[in-house]
Amino acid sequence: MASPFLRESVARLSPYVPGLQRSGVLKLNTNENPYPPPATVAAALAAFDAEALRLYPEPSCDTLREAFAAHFGCAAENVFVGNGSDEILRLAVQAFTPAAHPAAGAFHPTYSLYPVLARAADVPWKQWELADDGSYGWPEEMPGLGETGVFFLANPNAPTGTLAAPDAVARLAEKVPGVLLVDEAYIDFAGPGATALPLALSRKNVIVTRTLSKAGAMAGARLGVAVGDPELIDGFLRLKDSYNVNRLTQVLALAELEGWAEVRATAGKIATTRDETAAALAAKGWEVTPSRANFLWVKPPAGRTAKGVYDALAAKDILVRHFPDDPQTRDHLRISIGKSEDMERLLAALP
Amino acid sequence: MASPFLRESVARLSPYVPGLQRSGVLKLNTNENPYPPPATVAAALAAFDAEALRLYPEPSCDTLREAFAAHFGCAAENVFVGNGSDEILRLAVQAFTPAAHPAAGAFHPTYSLYPVLARAADVPWKQWELADDGSYGWPEEMPGLGETGVFFLANPNAPTGTLAAPDAVARLAEKVPGVLLVDEAYIDFAGPGATALPLALSRKNVIVTRTLSKAGAMAGARLGVAVGDPELIDGFLRLKDSYNVNRLTQVLALAELEGWAEVRATAGKIATTRDETAAALAAKGWEVTPSRANFLWVKPPAGRTAKGVYDALAAKDILVRHFPDDPQTRDHLRISIGKSEDMERLLAALP
Repeated sequence: MASPFLRESVARLSPYVPGLQRSGVLKLNTNENPYPPPATVAAALAAFDAEALRLYPEPSCDTLREAFAAHFGCAAENVFVGNGSDEILRLAVQAFTPAAHPAAGAFHPTYSLYPVLARAADVPWKQWELADDGSYGWPEEMPGLGETGVFFLANPNAPTGTLAAPDAVARLAEKVPGVLLVDEAYIDFAGPGATALPLALSRKNVIVTRTLSKAGAMAGARLGVAVGDPELIDGFLRLKDSYNVNRLTQVLALAELEGWAEVRATAGKIATTRDETAAALAAKGWEVTPSRANFLWVKPPAGRTAKGVYDALAAKDILVRHFPDDPQTRDHLRISIGKSEDMERLLAALP
Repeated sequence: MASPFLRESVARLSPYVPGLQRSGVLKLNTNENPYPPPATVAAALAAFDAEALRLYPEPSCDTLREAFAAHFGCAAENVFVGNGSDEILRLAVQAFTPAAHPAAGAFHPTYSLYPVLARAADVPWKQWELADDGSYGWPEEMPGLGETGVFFLANPNAPTGTLAAPDAVARLAEKVPGVLLVDEAYIDFAGPGATALPLALSRKNVIVTRTLSKAGAMAGARLGVAVGDPELIDGFLRLKDSYNVNRLTQVLALAELEGWAEVRATAGKIATTRDETAAALAAKGWEVTPSRANFLWVKPPAGRTAKGVYDALAAKDILVRHFPDDPQTRDHLRISIGKSEDMERLLAALP
């Protein structure tokens, strides 16, 4: 029986389950970066005086907003900084669901956190199926889209790794009656010209989110960014916790922007390893979805199940990600791209 | 005109306004600690390897939950760790407002964040006036309490600094139909025997929150803790962001618990400075509310207004806190306790 003290929607909520965090294993399960953050980050950390911790951080990260604005070529009022993009996604559900468009939605399959956030906020959830022929193409018809105040588009998509072209994203932004939130967590692995940033800076209803957790190699620091129209950014600012991003993370993110050339180089190296791994898996008979992210969405050859491969790898201390509860995902595995030697170890360990 | 993309409650929200963060001034406005965190924190910071940032933190801070459990003498399942107690207070509004008790409430005046959190979550807000004779005693009658799913009690109270005795808190817990959340941000300055922790560990409906921002001198790190019945703690765990507390803060908080004797000693020193400052202000004709926190709630002598004193101090680069918008608070100032020499500078600068 549920606790009488809990709100009913909270009591029945199935929380998002993050990938296992375990040490002493090869972690190819949470799309972390196998390389360290740039040297500027280590230098900023070494220079940080512990005494400064006694003071509250900048409440709205204004110094960092200015730095991201310079990085993206926009104004600080176009930028919001969050405690990971998780915070931003949660705030988007709450902020962008007015009475006229009270629902949140996305294509399916996508990042499984989105519907959890909607349920947690008591917001109706809508989803539209991607093609199930391996192309993951978008549906033509999207019944119920008119009720959707915020549409989440992960681009590149997770867990499929597929990338939608900017003109397709622009057409979707025309169709969505509310806010189109383009979650670009993996965009740094997608090559040039893939981002929807120009759209976020020219339209009233598009937000682009980024994170320092993937290419930035700072998943441990929790730093996400949103870019868009100042009226939408203002919605985030109104709802965020007073001091949502801690002082150290603000300093480290600033340092990372200074070392961004190194981030870009590392992301390129990971993209190369990804393409090599994809070719190697295809040569072994695996079905490999063309990926523009730092992971591969793959289906084992006939005779092997995703669960079987998952277990066999886990027995050899290699963690990948399996989403067994969804018919659209249960036959696949998501494999994060590590260093070359990590992927060689994976390939050698496959059953 | 409000943006058509924003939820109506968000568009009309007046966010909480934190005290000014400005450098190069004497900050007696946000109840920060004038002393640094313990040496164990600086050592942990120096030992932290920047490369570890590439990995996600523990999602639910389990190592830290164990450490706090040992610190408080309870089980890890009684403990939740948040991104500052701000996060915990926000989650409490969302988690503990079932249909039977859909409102949140508190005495008034108290921490002005509470009603903002309720409005942000579209939760009805109730408040009951403290005595306005300078004693800030609790009201006998609390009409509408039956609808209150979560009652916030800051103890010691902010901004008044007054402390309610444990037996009074226990009687309030009997009266509240939902959850009594005792916000003990300032408890380390209150002397022994003041905490409601035993109540939180024996009753089903009491949560105690703590923070490392005040006595802990780590406002910049963002770390709050909640203690209570596992069913209530579970409500927090269901709703929190997947990785709500970053890796560095988890490590630094663990280090701070190891150096807690130093925290306690510093808190004692601040309490002594507080009592000396209170006596000096009283001798100058100020009305000083007896404080058990690291700040004083004071009213200037006749002929001087709170606003006038605030401005005169600001002109001398000393920031204190003034809450001008509320009849119950506008005639007072809240002055954080710094080092002895800080308070001497304040006393000398008073108009």
